[in-house]
Amino acid sequence: MSEEVKPESVSLYSVSAAATPEQEAVCIFGTGDLGRSLGQRLLQSGYRLVYGSRRPHICGPIPPGAQVMSHEIAARSASLVFVCVHREHYDFLETLAPHLKGKVLVDVSNNLKKNMYPEANAEFLQRLIPGAHVVKAFNTLSAWALQNGPSDANRQVYLCGNSPEAKQAVAEIATKLGFNVQDRGSLSAARELEDFPLQLFPEWRLPMRLTIGLTAFFFFYLLARDVIFAYVDQGKDNSFRIMVSLANKVFPIVSLILLSLCYLPGVIAAFLQLYRGTKYKRFPDWLDRWMLCRKQLGLIALALASLHVLYTLIIPIRYYVRFRLAANTISQIKENKTFVFDTTMGWRTDSYYSMGILGFGLYLLLGIASLPSVSNALSWREFSFIQSKLGYLTLFFCTFHTYLYGWDKFLFISYYKWYTPPGYMLCLVVPSVVLLLKLLLLLPCVDKSLTRIRQGWERTDPEDDSKKSLLAKDCQKL
Amino acid sequence: MSEEVKPESVSLYSVSAAATPEQEAVCIFGTGDLGRSLGQRLLQSGYRLVYGSRRPHICGPIPPGAQVMSHEIAARSASLVFVCVHREHYDFLETLAPHLKGKVLVDVSNNLKKNMYPEANAEFLQRLIPGAHVVKAFNTLSAWALQNGPSDANRQVYLCGNSPEAKQAVAEIATKLGFNVQDRGSLSAARELEDFPLQLFPEWRLPMRLTIGLTAFFFFYLLARDVIFAYVDQGKDNSFRIMVSLANKVFPIVSLILLSLCYLPGVIAAFLQLYRGTKYKRFPDWLDRWMLCRKQLGLIALALASLHVLYTLIIPIRYYVRFRLAANTISQIKENKTFVFDTTMGWRTDSYYSMGILGFGLYLLLGIASLPSVSNALSWREFSFIQSKLGYLTLFFCTFHTYLYGWDKFLFISYYKWYTPPGYMLCLVVPSVVLLLKLLLLLPCVDKSLTRIRQGWERTDPEDDSKKSLLAKDCQKL
Amino acid sequence: MSEEVKPESVSLYSVSAAATPEQEAVCIFGTGDLGRSLGQRLLQSGYRLVYGSRRPHICGPIPPGAQVMSHEIAARSASLVFVCVHREHYDFLETLAPHLKGKVLVDVSNNLKKNMYPEANAEFLQRLIPGAHVVKAFNTLSAWALQNGPSDANRQVYLCGNSPEAKQAVAEIATKLGFNVQDRGSLSAARELEDFPLQLFPEWRLPMRLTIGLTAFFFFYLLARDVIFAYVDQGKDNSFRIMVSLANKVFPIVSLILLSLCYLPGVIAAFLQLYRGTKYKRFPDWLDRWMLCRKQLGLIALALASLHVLYTLIIPIRYYVRFRLAANTISQIKENKTFVFDTTMGWRTDSYYSMGILGFGLYLLLGIASLPSVSNALSWREFSFIQSKLGYLTLFFCTFHTYLYGWDKFLFISYYKWYTPPGYMLCLVVPSVVLLLKLLLLLPCVDKSLTRIRQGWERTDPEDDSKKSLLAKDCQKL
Repeated sequence: MSEEVKPESVSLYSVSAAATPEQEAVCIFGTGDLGRSLGQRLLQSGYRLVYGSRRPHICGPIPPGAQVMSHEIAARSASLVFVCVHREHYDFLETLAPHLKGKVLVDVSNNLKKNMYPEANAEFLQRLIPGAHVVKAFNTLSAWALQNGPSDANRQVYLCGNSPEAKQAVAEIATKLGFNVQDRGSLSAARELEDFPLQLFPEWRLPMRLTIGLTAFFFFYLLARDVIFAYVDQGKDNSFRIMVSLANKVFPIVSLILLSLCYLPGVIAAFLQLYRGTKYKRFPDWLDRWMLCRKQLGLIALALASLHVLYTLIIPIRYYVRFRLAANTISQIKENKTFVFDTTMGWRTDSYYSMGILGFGLYLLLGIASLPSVSNALSWREFSFIQSKLGYLTLFFCTFHTYLYGWDKFLFISYYKWYTPPGYMLCLVVPSVVLLLKLLLLLPCVDKSLTRIRQGWERTDPEDDSKKSLLAKDCQKL
Repeated sequence: MSEEVKPESVSLYSVSAAATPEQEAVCIFGTGDLGRSLGQRLLQSGYRLVYGSRRPHICGPIPPGAQVMSHEIAARSASLVFVCVHREHYDFLETLAPHLKGKVLVDVSNNLKKNMYPEANAEFLQRLIPGAHVVKAFNTLSAWALQNGPSDANRQVYLCGNSPEAKQAVAEIATKLGFNVQDRGSLSAARELEDFPLQLFPEWRLPMRLTIGLTAFFFFYLLARDVIFAYVDQGKDNSFRIMVSLANKVFPIVSLILLSLCYLPGVIAAFLQLYRGTKYKRFPDWLDRWMLCRKQLGLIALALASLHVLYTLIIPIRYYVRFRLAANTISQIKENKTFVFDTTMGWRTDSYYSMGILGFGLYLLLGIASLPSVSNALSWREFSFIQSKLGYLTLFFCTFHTYLYGWDKFLFISYYKWYTPPGYMLCLVVPSVVLLLKLLLLLPCVDKSLTRIRQGWERTDPEDDSKKSLLAKDCQKL
Repeated sequence: MSEEVKPESVSLYSVSAAATPEQEAVCIFGTGDLGRSLGQRLLQSGYRLVYGSRRPHICGPIPPGAQVMSHEIAARSASLVFVCVHREHYDFLETLAPHLKGKVLVDVSNNLKKNMYPEANAEFLQRLIPGAHVVKAFNTLSAWALQNGPSDANRQVYLCGNSPEAKQAVAEIATKLGFNVQDRGSLSAARELEDFPLQLFPEWRLPMRLTIGLTAFFFFYLLARDVIFAYVDQGKDNSFRIMVSLANKVFPIVSLILLSLCYLPGVIAAFLQLYRGTKYKRFPDWLDRWMLCRKQLGLIALALASLHVLYTLIIPIRYYVRFRLAANTISQIKENKTFVFDTTMGWRTDSYYSMGILGFGLYLLLGIASLPSVSNALSWREFSFIQSKLGYLTLFFCTFHTYLYGWDKFLFISYYKWYTPPGYMLCLVVPSVVLLLKLLLLLPCVDKSLTRIRQGWERTDPEDDSKKSLLAKDCQKL
């Protein structure tokens, strides 16, 4: 019933539509892929669009509704020009400089690799046409997003430039196209913006390499001990163990080492601060870089721990395990032996599993807290409570879990095949050290000194304000 | 101790409070539910509030601190008026037009269903009172959020309107009430905003229907094969298998099909572009719609895969499984047979589990990367690396997992009950096709042509700039 | 090759750099830790920086590039002053009042605990220097973030103040430093901002206490029944069961109770509204507080349910379980009994597991939907569909799962050790009540009345607009 449209309402409606402000005009230089994609979206969002082209009559298909003109005429028709041209062809713009004076030039270009040119494209453009207001923008979006609007990883438009008014004009267009705008400051940030779309998880590289290195080492180490040793020593083909048993040793070992490596730099930094007596001296570069990839280390460790959990949980449905359990039962019957339930064994294995589960549960919590939207909702006191206090608790649970796994195995010579220690022993070294050092730092007197240093106190500073207010007797033991 | 408030400080404090700018006045038309909820919040945020009512003296309870007046007088007291009246009663506003000239009218109304009226409520209001600046806003919030401030799904206030100043005024109020504001452009976006609160997962509908259809089909197909066949053929009551065994076949089957359906449209689109020799022709509508629901398909597939994991992991604690394992052991003893460990079987089953676990792990990663806050933090190169490269790897692992499950079963006639193939065979068709086609697309010459097309090159375009710069010999095989 | 920098380009580049607007100057009072951290970041972002100090010549190390002057001279050189001084020392600022007139004063201070002073630090500052425009900002960031820029939980800068221009100036600096800005209104919000960094999960406290209380109660209750009873009655040492068996009873019991406590307040509120005949009367305080911690209750319940899942899945690899299974098989053989497969048992246990898995799957969905970035992307209709409809379905599945676990155990006297009911019975009370009450609310006539009340209708209100438009006959049964 509501489908009936009364004639008056339609006419009135079109009047009101006519009352909306006239369409703004924008200009695009270049009718290549980028120019066309962007143009299509601008037209859809209600802009009037003029293309500037070297050969306006033979420039190939352009979105319907747009006009194509020579660069000069096109530039004259709008106060804002998108430069959708490869940097190699920027030089022709120099001749247009008089026509572009006072206009906003939006540089959307990207390079094929980092450091191709001594200066950022946008800065180069500004240098070519000093009279224009260059704004770097839109280059972090995919062509798909430019044509179809925001999608998953294409929601933010970063922009930078020296003229606030020019940036405002570009920000308005970006908002109208449906994007969120983030101002990154002056044009000197252009290089950073131009590098952004080229990067592929830069902060994950170091942790990934470390992970791959550790995984490879422990894989071959355990392959030698578990498969090759059995073959050489007893002529037994254990090779099928590679797929599950070996994986389920390598993953937790690497995971625990990575987790402890998250907390080691913090402990080192604390001792360095204690030793130097100030927090204002820069850490060595390697420590800084290490601290910056703790989050990535932790997340990889969590991923490996999750695999460990899955590999552990499928143990009872494995053919090999079922075969061995049945074989055990049969041999018990045949040899007419009766095993007695061992309560210590019950306690030990159950504690072992329980520690593992609780450690993994806390681990997941740490992972959830590092999701951007969750961590942004936390105050930093809450965030550091989770990542530090709960983090150490996680490390403790997981280390204890591994000690319970080892139990008294270290006493038996048969576990040292080819005189090598079992893998779990190797992986306990770093976490044990980290926990011990942390324990040291928690001693009241050490803790007090460290707190003072972190609040700005300096051992050699004779005139510090904070010294008086933060009052604390020097720790005798240090 | 800090509870003691010194009298001076209080008096001084009230002086400083007096120094704050005078309270702004806003007006609300309508003392219904919405008007009251909104009014309460406005009062709490420090606004002076005047209600406009047809019968100011008998209009029922209003929040304490607000005044009720006739519409004319109320409108005069504020430059901004919230219209909290049902659209059916908008006509009375026409008589108030002279009093509303130049004022900001905030239309917060919603309809009970989509397309009830030929034009959006806000546009209708603008047409009734052309002299006012109508802004559509707040309608996407629940009455609860309007009264109590932002909560989980009620943080964003979307607004649209033709006057930037009017929008700015509304945005300021929304910010003061604690909401985040997002400008959606001119008043023509009002319809979209009015439809928003009415929608219930519109983009999930098609994928959900497909999921339900596939689930139902495979459920009855496997019911016939696994339960009814056993009953008809051997008179055995297998019905208890419905709850776990059958579910654990249906879920992974549907999950794998859905996952492959995520990647099929991309492959089809690539072949279409290769065939057409351009990326500028629109895809057929069905393909467009399919591409737009890939994320939803993938997430449903992940949910089903998670159920498959849980159903698999409880296998060893099932009564039926324990019973059968014990029965097997007992029969081995009674018949005095000795089974020998089969290394091939060990390799195969362990590989089968390992592939499944790795596939599921990658699957989870894809799921995490599609969380809004995670995907927004990625550059599109990173996002497409995860969703495309890792996505295909996931599909490969999961398909391989299924092939290992099947192994040589396809050779034995006994698996083809009633001449039907087992479920796992049916579900392998689509993923195998997708992987094969993708492999074809990865052939260097095909890949090169496709890359050129995606960079804007067109086969029939004689004058394209990009042609020269992107230089590439035509692939001979195409 | 791109490393070669042509001399001209460099000179031109420096010209263009000179063309950028001159660096803005900002002033920082205080050369303590906070002042130095903030100063370093400001310098990096291109600001000119002047420190104001009581003893400019002996104030300790300051970041290179900054100047140190007396407070008076420093204040004169910039229009914006960061006050990085402890509140205890604010009084010296009073003497500077003439020099600070019209300037923007940014109060970044925090207190060591809540309610230390009768008024917020920023309000105190405004009172001391009435001529300045005080803005509270940056105090929610850690010193680390102030020095190094935004990081995980340090992305938002909240600000408040009475002067919009002053706030704008501070917002611009914050944006340039890379932070997101959120305006929290007038200076009266300063106290809230000052309390923010001091809080540690305030909304989690009540739910956590409840959880700890319930967990402790059920732990000791079940310890008495499962371990102490066995020891007293049969002298059996069951203590090893604490680690897994007992934990795996306590966690699901507390989880189910907490889940049902999420939905109980909503049901109570509905009955209260029905009884009162209006939604405009405030709920009692305890109900309000209860409603506000539903999300936290639900998330803790989800965490415990996840632990329950993990504890359940490791059952088959436990030493105790393997021992008992083998013992059972052996005793079957020795006594030469043959057990027959019980189809009812198969149905019951499989349904029990299936319900649990489906309940947990939905549970996870609820958890994912409450991630901030996910819930912000939902319309409130979608959000309430998930949290209410799917929430009740989850509660139903989990309750049904528990009933299937109990089955007919309640008939056997042996389960009532020491005349106490088993734990699962106790935990079924609240969820059963909630589901029953919800069922009552879903009766058409009750539902209709409730809907009307929630749309603003009031039973005693004779002149309500909504009454007419919402038309509905009164429910006879009420």
